[in-house]
Amino acid sequence: VSAVVLLTDFGASDWYVAAMKGAILSREPDATLVDLSHAVPPGDVLHASFLLEQTWRLFPQDTVFVAIVDPGVGTARRPIAVRAVERMFVGPDNGVLTSPLEDPSAEIRVIDPARVGAHALSPVFHGRDLFAPAAALLAASAAFASLGELVRDPMRLAASRAKLDGNRAEALVVYVDRFGNAITDLREEELRAWLKGTDAAKVRVRAGTGEIVGVSRTYEDVAPEAPLALVGSTGRLEIAVHGGHAGARLGLGVGDSITLEKAG
Amino acid sequence: VSAVVLLTDFGASDWYVAAMKGAILSREPDATLVDLSHAVPPGDVLHASFLLEQTWRLFPQDTVFVAIVDPGVGTARRPIAVRAVERMFVGPDNGVLTSPLEDPSAEIRVIDPARVGAHALSPVFHGRDLFAPAAALLAASAAFASLGELVRDPMRLAASRAKLDGNRAEALVVYVDRFGNAITDLREEELRAWLKGTDAAKVRVRAGTGEIVGVSRTYEDVAPEAPLALVGSTGRLEIAVHGGHAGARLGLGVGDSITLEKAG
Amino acid sequence: VSAVVLLTDFGASDWYVAAMKGAILSREPDATLVDLSHAVPPGDVLHASFLLEQTWRLFPQDTVFVAIVDPGVGTARRPIAVRAVERMFVGPDNGVLTSPLEDPSAEIRVIDPARVGAHALSPVFHGRDLFAPAAALLAASAAFASLGELVRDPMRLAASRAKLDGNRAEALVVYVDRFGNAITDLREEELRAWLKGTDAAKVRVRAGTGEIVGVSRTYEDVAPEAPLALVGSTGRLEIAVHGGHAGARLGLGVGDSITLEKAG
Repeated sequence: VSAVVLLTDFGASDWYVAAMKGAILSREPDATLVDLSHAVPPGDVLHASFLLEQTWRLFPQDTVFVAIVDPGVGTARRPIAVRAVERMFVGPDNGVLTSPLEDPSAEIRVIDPARVGAHALSPVFHGRDLFAPAAALLAASAAFASLGELVRDPMRLAASRAKLDGNRAEALVVYVDRFGNAITDLREEELRAWLKGTDAAKVRVRAGTGEIVGVSRTYEDVAPEAPLALVGSTGRLEIAVHGGHAGARLGLGVGDSITLEKAG
Repeated sequence: VSAVVLLTDFGASDWYVAAMKGAILSREPDATLVDLSHAVPPGDVLHASFLLEQTWRLFPQDTVFVAIVDPGVGTARRPIAVRAVERMFVGPDNGVLTSPLEDPSAEIRVIDPARVGAHALSPVFHGRDLFAPAAALLAASAAFASLGELVRDPMRLAASRAKLDGNRAEALVVYVDRFGNAITDLREEELRAWLKGTDAAKVRVRAGTGEIVGVSRTYEDVAPEAPLALVGSTGRLEIAVHGGHAGARLGLGVGDSITLEKAG
Repeated sequence: VSAVVLLTDFGASDWYVAAMKGAILSREPDATLVDLSHAVPPGDVLHASFLLEQTWRLFPQDTVFVAIVDPGVGTARRPIAVRAVERMFVGPDNGVLTSPLEDPSAEIRVIDPARVGAHALSPVFHGRDLFAPAAALLAASAAFASLGELVRDPMRLAASRAKLDGNRAEALVVYVDRFGNAITDLREEELRAWLKGTDAAKVRVRAGTGEIVGVSRTYEDVAPEAPLALVGSTGRLEIAVHGGHAGARLGLGVGDSITLEKAG
């Protein structure tokens, strides 16, 4: 029996997550339940998609992910299941599953309520009544194809992409974490290719009110309270403050622009 | 070995929940531990009782629920165990177990510390020292009757009940969830009986500063930012705002009154 | 397969905890994962050490604890593993493991990345890339000695100690919990020895703006809203307010001094 990983915007205070866990365990008592996060801002599909992207490949084969950020619950949006790189995913067809859908050999199916035994379906809680039963079936090794018909046009969110010119690069902040680290859309391999032949220690980075010279390896490469740029654990350029909250200190939030310039 | 579901007001920051989990796993290492919620407002027995009511029937048979909201810990209030509808419950006899106690064939026993091996009992942490050991025993299939003597007069909280007259109904808000949805004490079957023969689409609902006409099926039945009334996943009338927080927008909190009027 | 207990300052919003869980489950799918707390204030090693001290002995033998509060990640601080009282611990050598290190027969080893299969090591996320793999190995019964060489000088945090004179004692607040209870460094056995021959009911306690007479057994020993002193579930003197938040009511925070005086 597989692990079932839950990602929602249900928060930690209410009973919605527990309702889903009950619905899973009553069908598959041996499932290992893992919380990815339930603190996604309400309805923020992009945020949830980012959290899923950072984690799903770390879990074992056959893990089932349930991603429920679903402001359109009860409307015509389809419930879908995805199989990609030997993991499985269920969620609404609203872009929350964009990361596994980037696998070119992903198999995508609509979830047919009748086929997963979802007989009484609240129009406002498909997490409990539809996605949890589907996840329990997959965790118990049900044939993926049994869920429903193939889907050829699932919704994908557009990926944010850094702009890299000769001497200048522009990245956007896509996430600010608990520590205040501002994670951008500039990936390590793009950065390295752009920097080729220049001295990374002399790159000038402007991030909010911060002016940074050079790309560091770890937080303690700079003095306490100083801002720095580094490639973080996501494999993307991050702006941080040693021992402090870069988001608050430098005035950085999601969507803000960061610029890099090669030394003249 | 059963699932053990934990519901407390201990919060997520301290070690109290982990202490209970250690006390359970050291006695029954194969128990599947599930968090219902630990964000119950300190001492709010009614709130915890509501969370338990929404979830317990979703879990498999033989699940053991540990509900610890216990402002009177260390006083004369009894520790009790309940068996109802093939699930088991332990907690203080202060009303937190009201929902399973509504089962007319519920069996209720006092938990005798000596019988559950609770030898060193902190007067202020029965969750760790008494209820966790009792839950571990029940999860490991101990005979329910072995916990202690029968109890005939457990404490129950009075259920909040909507008032339904000929053309007018009054409900109370009993819970506001993370999304701001204000859940009332008016149940779907009561609402349907009251509406019989009238047009549900013309009912006038007054909820805080909101005036709503008709009962919707899902959030997207109304324009963005508009208020609506619908039967939510709890099977009760809820007041919501499409894409917004009804509690904050309409000024609705627990205990506030909602009125419904049939079209004249 | 053992339980793996996670203690971090990663918070509940981001994906860092889930990344660690994925890294553990992909190596040892049968591990039972338990969250001790992820709400440690960022970088607060002393706070994490306190939470670990309150809980680790409650878990079964062979439990593996992963304690990641690691402001110096990526620098020269060593990653270590500790075996004490039949439990195992991994974390940075920065004092977070002080409690198990107090066991005089503790065995301490540096974690050699190569020996735990940590090939690609982000300089800023050893929780995912080094400590999670090490914990998975230990949970799967790997020989403790295989992790790396012995360490003889691990870092320990200095324990806070109450000052006990003839008629006067001074304790420091070391933790304020969710309920507002202010836990001090004065242990029950020290208190009892100091009180010997005097009437505990007449001791005068000054704690912030609160003046308290006597040491209570439980919260309801005093009137609602009244402050009290009691030996809490940690076995230390705590200052509480019956039904209220002592930290806020009496102006008490970590590091504040409490005085006790015997009756004249």
